[in-house]
Amino acid sequence: MTATNKQVILKDYVNGFPKESNFDFKTNIVEFKVPGGSNSVLVKNLYLSCDPYMRMRMGKPDPSTAALAQAYAPGQPIFGYGVSRVIESGHPDYKKGDLLWGIVGWEEYSVITPMTHMHFKIQHTDVPLSYYAGLLGMPGMTAYAGFYEVCSPKKGETVYVSAASGAVGQLVGQLAKMMGCYVVGSAGSKEKVDLLKTKFGFDDAFNYKEEPDLSAALKRCFPEGIDIYFENVGGKMLDAVILNMRPHGRIAACGMISQYNLKNPEGIYGLSLITYKRIRIQGFNCFDYFDKYSEFLEFVVPYIREGKITYVEDVADGIESAPAALVGLFHGKNVGKQLVVVSPS
Amino acid sequence: MTATNKQVILKDYVNGFPKESNFDFKTNIVEFKVPGGSNSVLVKNLYLSCDPYMRMRMGKPDPSTAALAQAYAPGQPIFGYGVSRVIESGHPDYKKGDLLWGIVGWEEYSVITPMTHMHFKIQHTDVPLSYYAGLLGMPGMTAYAGFYEVCSPKKGETVYVSAASGAVGQLVGQLAKMMGCYVVGSAGSKEKVDLLKTKFGFDDAFNYKEEPDLSAALKRCFPEGIDIYFENVGGKMLDAVILNMRPHGRIAACGMISQYNLKNPEGIYGLSLITYKRIRIQGFNCFDYFDKYSEFLEFVVPYIREGKITYVEDVADGIESAPAALVGLFHGKNVGKQLVVVSPS
Repeated sequence: MTATNKQVILKDYVNGFPKESNFDFKTNIVEFKVPGGSNSVLVKNLYLSCDPYMRMRMGKPDPSTAALAQAYAPGQPIFGYGVSRVIESGHPDYKKGDLLWGIVGWEEYSVITPMTHMHFKIQHTDVPLSYYAGLLGMPGMTAYAGFYEVCSPKKGETVYVSAASGAVGQLVGQLAKMMGCYVVGSAGSKEKVDLLKTKFGFDDAFNYKEEPDLSAALKRCFPEGIDIYFENVGGKMLDAVILNMRPHGRIAACGMISQYNLKNPEGIYGLSLITYKRIRIQGFNCFDYFDKYSEFLEFVVPYIREGKITYVEDVADGIESAPAALVGLFHGKNVGKQLVVVSPS
Repeated sequence: MTATNKQVILKDYVNGFPKESNFDFKTNIVEFKVPGGSNSVLVKNLYLSCDPYMRMRMGKPDPSTAALAQAYAPGQPIFGYGVSRVIESGHPDYKKGDLLWGIVGWEEYSVITPMTHMHFKIQHTDVPLSYYAGLLGMPGMTAYAGFYEVCSPKKGETVYVSAASGAVGQLVGQLAKMMGCYVVGSAGSKEKVDLLKTKFGFDDAFNYKEEPDLSAALKRCFPEGIDIYFENVGGKMLDAVILNMRPHGRIAACGMISQYNLKNPEGIYGLSLITYKRIRIQGFNCFDYFDKYSEFLEFVVPYIREGKITYVEDVADGIESAPAALVGLFHGKNVGKQLVVVSPS
């Protein structure tokens, strides 16, 4: 049996903001069998996850980062996290019909070789399957590890989350509230700010695009200063935060999306304050914490079932819409976690 | 009994690089007795320590830092770390003739109220007394805590120290070598670079003023990258270091002397790399670690006695030379730890 397989191709390395025209589609034929004697698995991709880190892979490989962010190859399909169903399997851990999440090509069907900490078999199916591309996948794990392992949070502390309605931020805010912190988020539209306050339970929120002075906005929200900053944006926001951090504050540097598309990144000017304030800035990513994934599921799935943790998704329909969805991420077009549904089942 | 007491006065808040003309001298008469019923101690100051952090106290108090760095008052004597001998004491822990180190005025005699973690009685007098203003005082404690507590060092790691021949750097380098690290330092003259290699046992060293491309200099010294950066200077150097850090690297932000006198600090542009590289930047100061001071002495004093740890001092003679010595620090004029000897006994 065979099927046509539409793929999203990177045309050439991206400079500046990615555009839809940086991508193209290619269609090939996929045969429903895996090479004999291999560990390979043929999967049908159901959901694809659009994530800011993918921008790093679109640029020309840079010796200073190449080892850390494997670049996409022009003319080839890009890849990222997705949720998939097994069609054929040569791998002892997977059988036809199993569901998994992990790294797959941006295409309708992928042949993968499942790898530890890259692919995860889906056990709980009484929660939305798409959650495994967000809340229960890499972004959720990032929020969980970033908040509990990197931020060293304590009850009663003040927590600021930027890009707070995004895939990671919305969970960080909810985790911080559950711990008894005072939590403020920022986002780039009234709709998102409303979501933070009404849906995710943030104590306060502001639209950074309407604040001429970010430091003053933070001062208004945190008159006594910030203990924890969950950093998703970088640039001017980071400088404003450093001014408003309390002594012994912690910054979990999850990402700096405002800088990824700039030819010349913005400077951070207030860094010498971190000595007097004894601030810790910790860059991290979830890859170092996937050994805690089962623990994360045990923690979070019951809260989802009880409705105590919620998640907002922005779902683009069909692989044809994938490039626009991915590009939109860098303009803040998504409201909540940006996904592409390739096939509903 | 009385004596004249020459004091170093701050004339007015300092902008930019401090100059000798920012300071003045005043002389008063001190009576050799302490207020009855007080805990006060009258001390004769023997050595004064010139430290970069003092620049922070010379500026007009700034709400973002005032709570952390108490500003000097114009018209009043400045203060800092020193080594002193007790002349009269109303404090149960100190008697006439005792030696102590801690915060005193920049003057020949000071009346102090000894405070925990601010003043320390000197127990070991078979080592040079001046060491208590450097190697065995605040700078030494800063190096010890910064290296062992903040850098999380491991044998075989690569360590880079800036301002490496200074009060803190020279000890950090020696501690790192004792741990079995590969250690490179930078400084601002051939004389200092030679000291690093011949006196302190650094594996390599370079004069940053002769390197047109700091990142290339670091690449040459660390072809495989830097695991630990002991940060004393900030600015362009920090940016060059971030480019050369290895994954999971640690930066102990002890100080950023290159930035203290700038009206507009330099920007740090490569900070978004810390996410991919999972770099930790930790601002710290020794005040949080003084509970380990006895442990530090037990560790370091035997090495000093055996000649296994050495220390280079730059000693200015007489309180009249104190402003020039302090100002010179910000131009790198000192070779080794900058002190002022007020009185030899």
